[in-house]
Amino acid sequence: MRDEELLIEGRNVVIEAFRSGKTIDRLFVLDGCQDGPVNTILREAKKTGCIINFVKKERLDQLSVTGRHQGVIAYIAAYKYGTVEDMLKTANNRNEPPFFILLDNIEDPHNLGSIIRTANQAGAHGVIIPKRRASGLTAVVARASAGAINYTPVAKVTNMVKVIEDLKKQGMWFVCGDMDGETMYNLDLTGPIGLVIGSEGNGTSRLVKEKCDFIASIPMSGDIGSLNASVAMGILSYEIVRQRLMRKK
Amino acid sequence: MRDEELLIEGRNVVIEAFRSGKTIDRLFVLDGCQDGPVNTILREAKKTGCIINFVKKERLDQLSVTGRHQGVIAYIAAYKYGTVEDMLKTANNRNEPPFFILLDNIEDPHNLGSIIRTANQAGAHGVIIPKRRASGLTAVVARASAGAINYTPVAKVTNMVKVIEDLKKQGMWFVCGDMDGETMYNLDLTGPIGLVIGSEGNGTSRLVKEKCDFIASIPMSGDIGSLNASVAMGILSYEIVRQRLMRKK
Repeated sequence: MRDEELLIEGRNVVIEAFRSGKTIDRLFVLDGCQDGPVNTILREAKKTGCIINFVKKERLDQLSVTGRHQGVIAYIAAYKYGTVEDMLKTANNRNEPPFFILLDNIEDPHNLGSIIRTANQAGAHGVIIPKRRASGLTAVVARASAGAINYTPVAKVTNMVKVIEDLKKQGMWFVCGDMDGETMYNLDLTGPIGLVIGSEGNGTSRLVKEKCDFIASIPMSGDIGSLNASVAMGILSYEIVRQRLMRKK
Repeated sequence: MRDEELLIEGRNVVIEAFRSGKTIDRLFVLDGCQDGPVNTILREAKKTGCIINFVKKERLDQLSVTGRHQGVIAYIAAYKYGTVEDMLKTANNRNEPPFFILLDNIEDPHNLGSIIRTANQAGAHGVIIPKRRASGLTAVVARASAGAINYTPVAKVTNMVKVIEDLKKQGMWFVCGDMDGETMYNLDLTGPIGLVIGSEGNGTSRLVKEKCDFIASIPMSGDIGSLNASVAMGILSYEIVRQRLMRKK
């Protein structure tokens, strides 16, 4: 799945990548390694908020392409991340109420790509994903997004709950898609809104869900449990689009 | 893609499969081969409306697993197909106006599976696919459908245009999703309806599109061309669900 990401290895190469401002998606460091260059890497990683994975030598050997990892392997993001501030600015510039998509636990790169694509078409101003347990912006994601990744910013945040709290202070509302919610057609989704989509397996995490103002459900009359996450996101997003269009009339 | 389909080879095995009523998804016969058993196979294939592909020996050798194909290879469908008549009966039994999904040129098994899943949840009575150039009901489709394949019937038809004509005579309306149509929110989609979804690359074929009563478009404000076919199908299907629910009120 991660084959087309840029994998870099070796201490100097990784330090250089950090210093040149590249976005490191994931960092693997040999567990127990504490020398100068490695400490420099750890310091840079903490500065940028990059997640550090301490692993055994076997894992590094397995990931390594050149066989000369010197205890450090990193994946560089294939695409640049945006920021939540930029998304707010875009909404403001377009004179539209903010419309963000927040993904909680979506790990599948095809789903992430498809969601970025739909976000772009539905007129959302950006997609927010967590730093932990999320797919990076790989070539697989880019392909599934049909190029939308070049237009719709994706921000990677450390603490989704805090981002929601901050945005609420700025007047945004949050709606979470979940089966135990109120039917989406009965909710007012026309204001500045963040739509939270959880994973297919586990749904939205409890902490994130508790911060949401509404829980919206898609009426389901079927025999199976749920919808594909990217399809559910599309249906919920377009209910927001519909309500906004109707309001303008 | 087709790895988990049941491939069978050899004349007697294929004749046996036809006679026992198995659904053959695709049949490959050595070009120019005209002897008794092969003629029997061709006769059975025509009876069931199965598509026959006449191919060169090299192609058969390539497909063959055992190396003993005797000029005949067939793929058995992993799941049983339904019929359009059954779908009409189901709608009638549930006292609902018929709601069918018709797929024109959807070849990707993941999209087909996801569409069957959404069809199930949206309360559609069945999915209709063409015999030519469509993905069969393989294990990949079943997995992507999250099991919905066991509940929502899929009918494979020889002539999509004729099926539409026949169903129109029975009072059904057909709506085709396409970008050059009227915004879906402005159309009345509450009656007995067939929703036609074309492929991402080529859209709906001209002949099928001409038979449709409406062309419905999803409002798109993005920078890229289109939506993923299974996401577009989800959004259009749920506009039908919404209008039907609102009408009941």
